[in-house]
Amino acid sequence: MKKIKTIAFDADDTLWVNEPIFTKTQERCSKIMENYVNSSISQTKLYETEIKNLKLFGYGIKGFMLSMIETAIELSEGKVTGSEIQKIIDLGKEMIAHPVHLLENIKQTLEILKDDYELMIITKGDLFDQESKIARSGIADCFKKIEIVSEKDLATYANILFRHKIDKESFLMIGNSLKSDILPICELGARAVHIPFHTTWAHEMISVQKSKNLIYQELADVSLLPQYLDTLKN
Amino acid sequence: MKKIKTIAFDADDTLWVNEPIFTKTQERCSKIMENYVNSSISQTKLYETEIKNLKLFGYGIKGFMLSMIETAIELSEGKVTGSEIQKIIDLGKEMIAHPVHLLENIKQTLEILKDDYELMIITKGDLFDQESKIARSGIADCFKKIEIVSEKDLATYANILFRHKIDKESFLMIGNSLKSDILPICELGARAVHIPFHTTWAHEMISVQKSKNLIYQELADVSLLPQYLDTLKN
Repeated sequence: MKKIKTIAFDADDTLWVNEPIFTKTQERCSKIMENYVNSSISQTKLYETEIKNLKLFGYGIKGFMLSMIETAIELSEGKVTGSEIQKIIDLGKEMIAHPVHLLENIKQTLEILKDDYELMIITKGDLFDQESKIARSGIADCFKKIEIVSEKDLATYANILFRHKIDKESFLMIGNSLKSDILPICELGARAVHIPFHTTWAHEMISVQKSKNLIYQELADVSLLPQYLDTLKN
Repeated sequence: MKKIKTIAFDADDTLWVNEPIFTKTQERCSKIMENYVNSSISQTKLYETEIKNLKLFGYGIKGFMLSMIETAIELSEGKVTGSEIQKIIDLGKEMIAHPVHLLENIKQTLEILKDDYELMIITKGDLFDQESKIARSGIADCFKKIEIVSEKDLATYANILFRHKIDKESFLMIGNSLKSDILPICELGARAVHIPFHTTWAHEMISVQKSKNLIYQELADVSLLPQYLDTLKN
């Protein structure tokens, strides 16, 4: 295998905290809905609505807000009040404006790697939200290339590598989602490092059946990355 | 000036119909709101809410849906019903799924130009919506490069030209919005063609004061483009 030249990082829950903000908001939304229905029902229904709306809304906070509103209307049988809906919208606005909290050891690791490798972000989601988070992250300068995409599958990665003239053998993808960051990279025949995050959205999970055939490196923490990269040099 | 090599087209209301879909939806939303307030008030208020939310939501249908919902709650003083809000969400979903109607003479003109020039799309808005429209447009194959951006200002265009190694003297931008497609291109010192569309969102207008100092070509119809390009060759 060739030497790694380009390292691409997923962003949400790889560089900074994301899923816990959704989980927390979902709990607060369920709390509002307690006037109509118990919390576990509204969380299940919300997930169903999100998945149903995914093909129309894509990923991101605005689609999530609309799914929360639709769920509230359906579960309350239309009885949800204007002020309750406004509270849900305000929860979403808080998410959008939420400070960007980098994960532990990210900044230090990027500082170590940025002179020896071309660093890149490949993140999926809402263009406006992701650009805003990158701008507020304080680490934007570490990255030479940024790609915000609507879906992370084999075709997306192949297209990015083609457009940037990156040889797949010199490319390494780092991320927390087996489904979006690891599986398609393995299919492509490139290398991937999985750094698990404590919370994963159900939609980003893959079956054990699917994951057991994948060849990728698992690291418990991003700070182990420079050491792992050293092993590839030999 | 150098010969034009790359021609970039704005998408909404330059390649295909967009603003009339928003206008129509806005009217249908005002109709729902007639139970609480007259149509001109709700249209004015909706515009105010959209502009206020722009820095949080960016451009696109999902942000527009959320602004319609907020406007409905505010104008009805919280009395808007769940089923009325659902009707507003359904209006937005119809917008997202709306067929892409190419403007007259677009397809023929692109066919004429695509072998002699590198054609590009530069469009602002929601990544997911714009990708979906491009995919459904039937003209995606005419374009070598596609850029979906969150804002179209001088910095955005400079960055695109830099990344694609496009010389500004060999670049031509085509669009219907003086604010987004023409003004920043003139500031950059590149060439621009304005093709007006019958409906322009108030936010995309610029003052006569600002526009009178701009040097750009105005064409009444895209079919005049090949002829205009011929004049640049001499």
